[in-house]
Amino acid sequence: MTTKVKQSPRERLLEAAATLTYRDGVGIGVQALCKAAGVSKRSMYQLFKSKDELLAASLKERSAAFAARALPPADDGRSPRERILYVFERVELQAGAPEFHGCRYLAVQIELKDQAHPARRVAHKIKANLTAFFRAEADHGGASDPDLLARQLILVFDGANARAGIGADHLTGLIAPTVTTLLDAADMH
Amino acid sequence: MTTKVKQSPRERLLEAAATLTYRDGVGIGVQALCKAAGVSKRSMYQLFKSKDELLAASLKERSAAFAARALPPADDGRSPRERILYVFERVELQAGAPEFHGCRYLAVQIELKDQAHPARRVAHKIKANLTAFFRAEADHGGASDPDLLARQLILVFDGANARAGIGADHLTGLIAPTVTTLLDAADMH
Repeated sequence: MTTKVKQSPRERLLEAAATLTYRDGVGIGVQALCKAAGVSKRSMYQLFKSKDELLAASLKERSAAFAARALPPADDGRSPRERILYVFERVELQAGAPEFHGCRYLAVQIELKDQAHPARRVAHKIKANLTAFFRAEADHGGASDPDLLARQLILVFDGANARAGIGADHLTGLIAPTVTTLLDAADMH
Repeated sequence: MTTKVKQSPRERLLEAAATLTYRDGVGIGVQALCKAAGVSKRSMYQLFKSKDELLAASLKERSAAFAARALPPADDGRSPRERILYVFERVELQAGAPEFHGCRYLAVQIELKDQAHPARRVAHKIKANLTAFFRAEADHGGASDPDLLARQLILVFDGANARAGIGADHLTGLIAPTVTTLLDAADMH
């Protein structure tokens, strides 16, 4: 049995922003966001300076959950190589879900053409953390060139999310052999 | 000396749509498009059924130029392996240009959430042609699994364009070793 805790207007706005921008894009209007959240425009502007700030906050709010879902638990006994493969197994799993549109942080960065947009900066930071995870694991696993391997892995992560997100590839039988080939070439253990 | 041929309203609209959607996204308004093209709204709607049709036509219009720029000339003496590498050299070269925002066909597919949108269908078709190029070269080069290699190459193509397009990677020293590793693993000659 789950008990539904009543959400505050702030929480409802953050959830509406996350859900609607992921489904419909960053062009979603303030009116639609407020309607979905059941919050007046006036209340929204009391809580957030602007729609841009609301989008940024909604991405930030989800970043811990994203990391918890995307990354293996710390010190879980997996080797660095297995920890990297874990991330890509999760991508393949998520890609099969209905309503999957790829990585929300990549989409936001592509959709918002202004690099200085607060939501784009948040998204950039979250993905930089993922790159740092790859870099650290590459280092621990004795990769011949950890910087190169980390760049390759985040490129494959974004490429896989983009391809699956637009429905151009289901990723099955693609992502594991690709990552394995790159790990082998880097002599990762 | 170049002679500037006077463009028709249709050509000006196609160019404005291509330029402005690439720079500002697919959310660009009809008014902005018409203003940039120096064409009245009424004339636009006489030429195109809708903004959606204008976007689709502008992508289609550029597809031949895209292929000419992205792909090596037919029967140019390069090996299949070199022909594939050529495509990625071009990506790296373009990524260094100012105003580069990645592959316009990928961006359009990510930005337009509706798979049935006419512009999204055009973009999908153009990228499917690129995948078919990779598939044919993989076959000619004796790749151990041409289907897998083609899927890997278009994944790297989209990943590299996405990463460079959002300014997260400059691709130098990344794309050539990545593609070479995948070609080697597939025993491509």
